[in-house]
Amino acid sequence: MPLIKTNYIFITKIIIINFTIMKRKVTLKQIAKELDVSISTVSKSLRNSLEIGEDTRLKVQAFAKFYNYKPNNIALSLKNRKTKTIGIIIPEIVHHFFSTVINGIEQVANENGYSVIICLSDDSFDKEVLNMEMLANGSIDGFIMSLSKETQFKGDFHHITEVIDQGMPVVMFDRVTNEILCDKVIIDDKLSAYEAVQSLIDKGRKKIALVTTVDYVSVGKLRTDGYIKALLDNNIPFDENLIIKIEDVDTCEIIIGKLLEDKAIDAVFAVNELFAVICIKTANKIGLNVPKDLAVIAFTDGIISKYSTPTITTVSQSGIKMGNKAAKMLIERLESEHEDEEEENYKTEVIETHLIERESTS
Amino acid sequence: MPLIKTNYIFITKIIIINFTIMKRKVTLKQIAKELDVSISTVSKSLRNSLEIGEDTRLKVQAFAKFYNYKPNNIALSLKNRKTKTIGIIIPEIVHHFFSTVINGIEQVANENGYSVIICLSDDSFDKEVLNMEMLANGSIDGFIMSLSKETQFKGDFHHITEVIDQGMPVVMFDRVTNEILCDKVIIDDKLSAYEAVQSLIDKGRKKIALVTTVDYVSVGKLRTDGYIKALLDNNIPFDENLIIKIEDVDTCEIIIGKLLEDKAIDAVFAVNELFAVICIKTANKIGLNVPKDLAVIAFTDGIISKYSTPTITTVSQSGIKMGNKAAKMLIERLESEHEDEEEENYKTEVIETHLIERESTS
Repeated sequence: MPLIKTNYIFITKIIIINFTIMKRKVTLKQIAKELDVSISTVSKSLRNSLEIGEDTRLKVQAFAKFYNYKPNNIALSLKNRKTKTIGIIIPEIVHHFFSTVINGIEQVANENGYSVIICLSDDSFDKEVLNMEMLANGSIDGFIMSLSKETQFKGDFHHITEVIDQGMPVVMFDRVTNEILCDKVIIDDKLSAYEAVQSLIDKGRKKIALVTTVDYVSVGKLRTDGYIKALLDNNIPFDENLIIKIEDVDTCEIIIGKLLEDKAIDAVFAVNELFAVICIKTANKIGLNVPKDLAVIAFTDGIISKYSTPTITTVSQSGIKMGNKAAKMLIERLESEHEDEEEENYKTEVIETHLIERESTS
Repeated sequence: MPLIKTNYIFITKIIIINFTIMKRKVTLKQIAKELDVSISTVSKSLRNSLEIGEDTRLKVQAFAKFYNYKPNNIALSLKNRKTKTIGIIIPEIVHHFFSTVINGIEQVANENGYSVIICLSDDSFDKEVLNMEMLANGSIDGFIMSLSKETQFKGDFHHITEVIDQGMPVVMFDRVTNEILCDKVIIDDKLSAYEAVQSLIDKGRKKIALVTTVDYVSVGKLRTDGYIKALLDNNIPFDENLIIKIEDVDTCEIIIGKLLEDKAIDAVFAVNELFAVICIKTANKIGLNVPKDLAVIAFTDGIISKYSTPTITTVSQSGIKMGNKAAKMLIERLESEHEDEEEENYKTEVIETHLIERESTS
């Protein structure tokens, strides 16, 4: 009788320790903290996932039951009322790209009588799980989200599966995963990177560096693939020393300085405009002229590219259009008559990018 | 018997027209749309405000009653459960300043076990009212907010009074109003502007323009006061033609171009970094050198100032510190033992600013 035994000892303990939280609704986070396990473990245990050992699973379930933990009453709330609210989960908002996606979502949402609530995962898996749990608990009708770095690193998407399984639609944008079947809005990161690098080659540049993020961010990986393909298609040997992976913006300047001084490159393709502007500043400091000595292209057209000196040529990844499209897809699904649509119905919309030529390459 | 008569005709009409929405919870917005009045009118009518004519008031009340409209059950929800969630309402997120405030709030909130939900008013009064109504309806424990331009223009703060009256704490930051008694976090906009302009005068600049926003934004007004005081204290005649009020960023470049060409100024104090960088780009275009011919200082230290060429001297208005402080004040109030604290207990915290000297003034 492992269940009864576990429950008994366990409940005795928690009654003594946790008398104070009894009146409140217990959350995933509190359960995790109390039992000293991860949020993911709690969440999986409550779904009875066999990934979690029986002992832990039963302990979590007993605790949850004792404190009347209620998993999201999504199905219930969907049947009974519409909140007419869309929940957005994004990694961060300091980057201009995510701000513009939000503006794009707001436009279409407001036109259709929906409000919008935003939560930040801060690129943390735990925060993503907690925020989804909080919002799914009756505050919203559906999600529009871009995955956190840590979620992509872990490859753990059970919290998203859970929400979808309970009937709440999810639309992913930009940082998506093939492991979840749902509506998605992306750009063709590989093709866009390919075209940007090709444009540098067309201008006679031969030693092109790639300044990118760490590998597990899906879009970074795809842009790297596009960069390599463009080189090889033009018979330019691929040199992996010309790929610089930035994990922390604070060290970016030093790493780029080393690249510029050691490798004698004549162009940089940067996966975001912050990396690009740091390249330009660093190049200027060591006496290089942009674009004469060094051509620079950035991914994502934002405010920095427009106002830096020289202005920066960018791959415009229209955040507004992505947001518009994501909101349209979610609202269509929310207002569709067919609640039990087939999985093959899910669409992946590819938003076109284009190169905005500015001073940094001309 | 105006009430009964009104109700009768009215209810007959709405039963016919609106049978479809009967099962749903009716919102302020739906009532406003249905009766073709503003959201503010609905909201005030439900509070029985004498600002609204009796006829309209009774009509709104009858409609609300018929559809079981429930004003925020804040007091109830506060007594029964804590959501451990903070609601943020800000005008927009494209400006770096608001993003950093959010990061500051998230830091302290997460340390204290609170989640954060963000809604954008998009500088619209109606969106501010609707978002507050939505969040106050059980999703959050308290608000941290910065007023929309339109709210400041209208001077209508009844939605905030309502929330506070029902026992939900509100902390305002940056764009605040004296008409609401609550905790506030501000910088001394007047003094900070004074010091920035004084630093330009100390460097020998004599013809200093102010590039600012329209008057009804509270911080813009205060910064203008500081600018004028610094000039007068230094016996520099105040010329109102040197104050440029930008309503729309798209026209900013033309207006600034005219200022630079017509007025032969030697310095600009801009109330945000976007205006400052546009000044620099425009000055460069007409052959002026920054800082030699034109010194530039911007309010708010953001990503543009750091990466523009030349880099821009700024008044650092620490968004992180503001966010930290606002979150601390809200959480203290939420967790205070004394639920019915006296009004005089409200504090206004002033966050110190400092001048970050960069290339645009040196």
